Amino acid sequence: MKALVSGDPGLRLDSVAEPEPRPDQALVEVHAIGVNRGELALMGQLPPGSRLGWDVAGTVLRAAADGTGPAAGTRVTALAERDGWAERIALSPTRLTPVPDGMDWPAAAALPVAGLTALYALEYAGPLLGRSVVITGAGGGVGRMLVQLAAAAGAEVIAQVGSPGRAEGLRSLGAHTVETYEEGADGGPVDVLVDSVGGRVLAGAFGRVRPGGTVVCYGNTVREELRLPLDWGHARPGLRIGYLHLFDEVTRRSVARDLASLVRLVAEGRLTPEVAAVGSWSDPEPALDALRQRQANGKVVLTL
Amino acid sequence: MKALVSGDPGLRLDSVAEPEPRPDQALVEVHAIGVNRGELALMGQLPPGSRLGWDVAGTVLRAAADGTGPAAGTRVTALAERDGWAERIALSPTRLTPVPDGMDWPAAAALPVAGLTALYALEYAGPLLGRSVVITGAGGGVGRMLVQLAAAAGAEVIAQVGSPGRAEGLRSLGAHTVETYEEGADGGPVDVLVDSVGGRVLAGAFGRVRPGGTVVCYGNTVREELRLPLDWGHARPGLRIGYLHLFDEVTRRSVARDLASLVRLVAEGRLTPEVAAVGSWSDPEPALDALRQRQANGKVVLTL
Repeated sequence: MKALVSGDPGLRLDSVAEPEPRPDQALVEVHAIGVNRGELALMGQLPPGSRLGWDVAGTVLRAAADGTGPAAGTRVTALAERDGWAERIALSPTRLTPVPDGMDWPAAAALPVAGLTALYALEYAGPLLGRSVVITGAGGGVGRMLVQLAAAAGAEVIAQVGSPGRAEGLRSLGAHTVETYEEGADGGPVDVLVDSVGGRVLAGAFGRVRPGGTVVCYGNTVREELRLPLDWGHARPGLRIGYLHLFDEVTRRSVARDLASLVRLVAEGRLTPEVAAVGSWSDPEPALDALRQRQANGKVVLTL
Repeated sequence: MKALVSGDPGLRLDSVAEPEPRPDQALVEVHAIGVNRGELALMGQLPPGSRLGWDVAGTVLRAAADGTGPAAGTRVTALAERDGWAERIALSPTRLTPVPDGMDWPAAAALPVAGLTALYALEYAGPLLGRSVVITGAGGGVGRMLVQLAAAAGAEVIAQVGSPGRAEGLRSLGAHTVETYEEGADGGPVDVLVDSVGGRVLAGAFGRVRPGGTVVCYGNTVREELRLPLDWGHARPGLRIGYLHLFDEVTRRSVARDLASLVRLVAEGRLTPEVAAVGSWSDPEPALDALRQRQANGKVVLTL
C-alpha cells in the first residue's frame, strides 16, 4: 500500500508494508488525514522515509478480532501514534470513535489532535463558566477549537492573534474580543491564559493573569526563553501554571471517550472543525506551505 | 497595654489600646511571638508606629462570648492577621488551636506561619510517598518545617541551602541529601521542587524537575526575575507550577484544623519547631539581626 513519508525535503508517497492488526486492533481504511505543525517539526528531525500521521478519518475495514470497538463499515475518527498517513492503519478501538454520516472526511480528520489538545488544555484550566480566558495563537487549528470550546463552556473569550489576517471568523466562533498581541498588552485582568506561543507573547499575556488565576501552556512556537518579572508569583497568589503535551496527556486519558465528546459537540453544533485548506495527499505541498507560513486559519487536511 | 510597633528603623515598644473582642472572638494573653522575614519586609513599608504580628502563643484569658473555641486558661497557638505583637489580642477561634503542656511558648510561637506555609506548599505538591523533593531555602524557618514534613510524608528529601553554614541539623530533621545551590545544579531528576528563593536558584533547580513534576513557589527572596529556557515546558509535559502566599491561602482553609494537625505532628515527635534564637521583646534587635542576615537556622521568637 501507499503511505506519505518524510522526503528530503517535504513529503513523498512511498510503498510500505500492509499493517498487521493485533487481535485488539481494528483495520481502518483511511480517507483523510490531518497535518499538524508538530508533525512538520518532527519531519525535519526524522530520517527520510520515516512514517508519520496522527490525525486519521476513515472506515473500519475489519473490526478488532477480540470483539471490541466498532463493526466493519463504521466511519471513524482516530488519534494514531504515527503511521496515520497511509491507505490503511491498524488502530486500537481505545483511540477511535464513530462519526455520524453528516460529518465529512476533512472535518473528521481535523478533529483529533486539535480537538483533544484544546479539550485537555481547558480541563487544566478548570471551570470556565463566567471566567475570562485569553487564548494566544487563536487563529490556528488548536486556537480555533479553544475559542469555540471555551465559549461553549461559558467563558468570556479573548482571542489573540499575531496579525489581523489571522483573526478571520474568530468572532463568529465565539470570541468576545479579538486582538493582536500588541493590543492585548494593555488589556485588563483575566482569570485564565491558554498559550501556545511562548516567549514574549506568553510573558505579555501572563501580566494580565489575576491572583488565583490559571495559565495553561501547550507549545512555544516562537522558540524563545521565558522571562517573567520578579513579582510573577507574589502579584498573583494562588496562581497555577500547567504545561500540556498531547501525547503525554493521552497516556492518562480515555481517548475514545474524549473523541466521542468532541464528535457530540460537533453534532450539536457547538463545535465546528475549521478546515482552512484541503489538499490531495498526492500533491501535499501547497497545503503544507500554508501551514508552514502560518497562513492556515484552521486545520490543514489531505484527502486520499 | 504594650505592643511592639514598627520604629524608624527597627521595632519599639509602645502603648496601644486594649483589644475589644467581638462576640466571636477570644481574648488571648500573649506569652511568645514569632518573627518572620515577611514581617521585616512589611515593617520597612509601613509608617512608624504600625502594628504587626502573625505568630502568637499564649493563654486564653476570656473565651469567645458566643461559646465557640477553647475555654479560659487554655494554652493556644494562633495565626493572627496582625496585631499579634502585643500583650493581649482578640482572636477568632477559627485561627487558633490548643497546645499541650509539653510544648513550650517559643515552640508554639514558631509554628503557625512557618508550619502552615510548609503544610500548604506540600499539599500543592500532591502525594509525596516515594517521590523526590528538592527544597530550596531549607536552612530557614519554613525550610526546616518543609524538610521534616516532606520526610514525614515519605519523600526522599533533598535540602538545598545557600551556604554550608545553613545546613546545620538538616540531616537529623530528615533530609537525605544536603547540598548548596551550586552543588545541586548537577543533581539528578526530581519529582517535586519547593522554592522560596526565586531567580537563578529557582531556575537552576527547575532544570531538574521531571516530566509530570510539580513546582511550588512561595517566595522570591533573591528578588530576581525568572528566566527559564525555551524547552521549560516541552521537556517536562504534565508539569504543574503553583505559587502560594499564606495569607491568600488561608482564605480557603480551615486554619484551626490545620494548626491542630501541626500540633499533633509535634506531639507525635514527627515535627520539631526549630527555634534558632529566642530574644526578649524588650530587646528584639539581636534576634532580628540574625533573621535579617540569614543566620537564623530556624525560627526567631521573642518572649514577653
